[in-house]
Amino acid sequence: IRTYKIASIPGDGIGPEVVNVTIDVLKSLQDILGTYKLDFTELDWGTARYKKTGKYMPADGLDTLKTFDAGLFGAVGAPDVPDHISLWELLLAMRGPLQLYANVRPVKNFPNVPSLLKDVQDGDIDWVLVRENSEGEYCGQGGRTHRGTPWEIATEVSVFTHVGVERIMRFAFEIARSRPRKLLTVVTKSNAMRHGMVLWDEVAAEVAKDFPDVKWDKMLVDAMTVRMAAKPKSLDTIVGTNLHMDILSDLAAALAGSIGIAASSNLDPTRKNPSIFEPVHGSAFDITGKGVANPVATLWCASEMLAWIGEKEAAAILLQAVEDICSQGICTPDLGGNVGTIEFGQAVVQAI
Amino acid sequence: IRTYKIASIPGDGIGPEVVNVTIDVLKSLQDILGTYKLDFTELDWGTARYKKTGKYMPADGLDTLKTFDAGLFGAVGAPDVPDHISLWELLLAMRGPLQLYANVRPVKNFPNVPSLLKDVQDGDIDWVLVRENSEGEYCGQGGRTHRGTPWEIATEVSVFTHVGVERIMRFAFEIARSRPRKLLTVVTKSNAMRHGMVLWDEVAAEVAKDFPDVKWDKMLVDAMTVRMAAKPKSLDTIVGTNLHMDILSDLAAALAGSIGIAASSNLDPTRKNPSIFEPVHGSAFDITGKGVANPVATLWCASEMLAWIGEKEAAAILLQAVEDICSQGICTPDLGGNVGTIEFGQAVVQAI
Ligand SMILES: CC(C)[C@H](C(=O)O)[C@@H](O)C(=O)O
Ligand SMILES: CC(C)[C@H](C(=O)O)[C@@H](O)C(=O)O
Repeated sequence: IRTYKIASIPGDGIGPEVVNVTIDVLKSLQDILGTYKLDFTELDWGTARYKKTGKYMPADGLDTLKTFDAGLFGAVGAPDVPDHISLWELLLAMRGPLQLYANVRPVKNFPNVPSLLKDVQDGDIDWVLVRENSEGEYCGQGGRTHRGTPWEIATEVSVFTHVGVERIMRFAFEIARSRPRKLLTVVTKSNAMRHGMVLWDEVAAEVAKDFPDVKWDKMLVDAMTVRMAAKPKSLDTIVGTNLHMDILSDLAAALAGSIGIAASSNLDPTRKNPSIFEPVHGSAFDITGKGVANPVATLWCASEMLAWIGEKEAAAILLQAVEDICSQGICTPDLGGNVGTIEFGQAVVQAI
Repeated sequence: IRTYKIASIPGDGIGPEVVNVTIDVLKSLQDILGTYKLDFTELDWGTARYKKTGKYMPADGLDTLKTFDAGLFGAVGAPDVPDHISLWELLLAMRGPLQLYANVRPVKNFPNVPSLLKDVQDGDIDWVLVRENSEGEYCGQGGRTHRGTPWEIATEVSVFTHVGVERIMRFAFEIARSRPRKLLTVVTKSNAMRHGMVLWDEVAAEVAKDFPDVKWDKMLVDAMTVRMAAKPKSLDTIVGTNLHMDILSDLAAALAGSIGIAASSNLDPTRKNPSIFEPVHGSAFDITGKGVANPVATLWCASEMLAWIGEKEAAAILLQAVEDICSQGICTPDLGGNVGTIEFGQAVVQAI
């Protein structure tokens, strides 16, 4: 029987609630299928650990992670710790250093989750957003000079390497090629930003030559928001920088009506390091501990994780079961239902 | 009689069509009111000039501009000139060097222009977007090293000065204060970008102390897209960086249904230099010369221009006349009507 070592990092807020339910569902699924086994180890990384030890993860955290086949992450962030500390010490400390350079976010109309847009029918929105996840605007470079004076200046430096742009571009073209419409939109802002953004344009044109079967076009990031809202059916796979796709992926999920259920995969496509799967919603302290957190995003992540490690059949069964339950109108309060996190998980197990 | 010197820069594509109609309307308006006079001078800056002389504007162009009270700009950009050339030689060459540091974009539901959002009633969207227009992501700094090799790196450097952030923040707080709801939302991305974005946060908190009557909050730019789409009524005045507000202002206009009619003011709030008013739509070469370009954006700009130079009554009459004509269902083909650019202008004159 195939066995995979999975690190679970429940983290902060509702993280533990949604991760634990998802692990229960995953265990039932593997018992039913009987062809593979996930071997879970929980890591206590997060704000509680930070408050005790001063560190979100241990010094050898990344080495520990590397011994796993994948990671399932809950959420990080707490009301009493500045976000730039919690995120840079945990989430961003994994994405960059582990070279999880492809952040993939599928966005689609989900049953009983109405789109915010007027003219969207079920199925009109079916996108894969590919975000460069290791450099660009979030590389951390920059600084502040003359701090605290009226003549202070601060910089944020975006670093784009040919290696970094080319690998995410190839990855995005591969994804586009694997989908029925074979359609890729490359997002940049090269009319106003003439260095790194022009490199993006050039690399896109270079890489496109190796994918003659993929139709591709370019959009400026500002105009892209208009196209997403006004012509959602014209889009399929989308690739862009760390910041641009951070913004567009939130917008995408909102337009599809599904920001609360959005899933995100931090992938190392070279498979040297474990990939990490995380719901987009964050720690949501306002509903923490009430048992009402929506586990759909984390279940969707779990499906993506199964597909990534090679268990495609299990992945499909899991996502289908979640969609079936949603179709029946069974959902948590955020989507207008009255089912709790654990009951939702049980319903999914039934459907499996 | 009060007289104002206005530079008209029709520019490329549909620019001349919409600017000329707008000038006709402005002339009729001043004849009717008889209390002030706009004295127009046309400047031939644009791609035609570039092709003849190699320059979008003359070497002393900015000095020429400084002799005017305001500028009315059409559009720049042509299919056969790279955008980063046309924009940096004309549009961005005015915004930064003239210190037109406040780009203001009003966005609201316009009569007979349906919103793309499902749950939006007329009047729900009534926002003023304030964009830092002189520094940040569009300061032009950065470069490329090892060009053409696989180890090339490119940078885009965003520069934020205390002066620059403080002046746009004060301006935005003033705008918020002048509006009935006295509500300001400051957009940053300080959880992931820890230098310039943190300066934005700090300056916002500093400046807010001088505006105790304004309610203000902060949003991360990614989450802001969600709020705009899901809770449009919760917003009023919005301020952010050059890039963030470039993206959000396009999204805003799209959600309100009005990207084709969006107006934009490039203001020097110190009034040392003339402010420049431009429709957002751009040169639109596909419909150039057909006489069907929608002049609403430029007419809206003209109204903003009148208000800025001090002719508030004329400004209000003009905008009201445009809205009245739209209410009657009179519109150009892009909004489903069958009226041409010139006829639309004539209808507005009738309404005045
Ligand atoms: C939490 C934050 C740093 C993160 C990001 O901006 O990358 C989040 O918004 C996301 O999209 O995963
Ligand atoms: C044309 C372009 C440089 C410009 C910008 O990005 O500033 C435009 O998109 C705008 O919003 O005015």
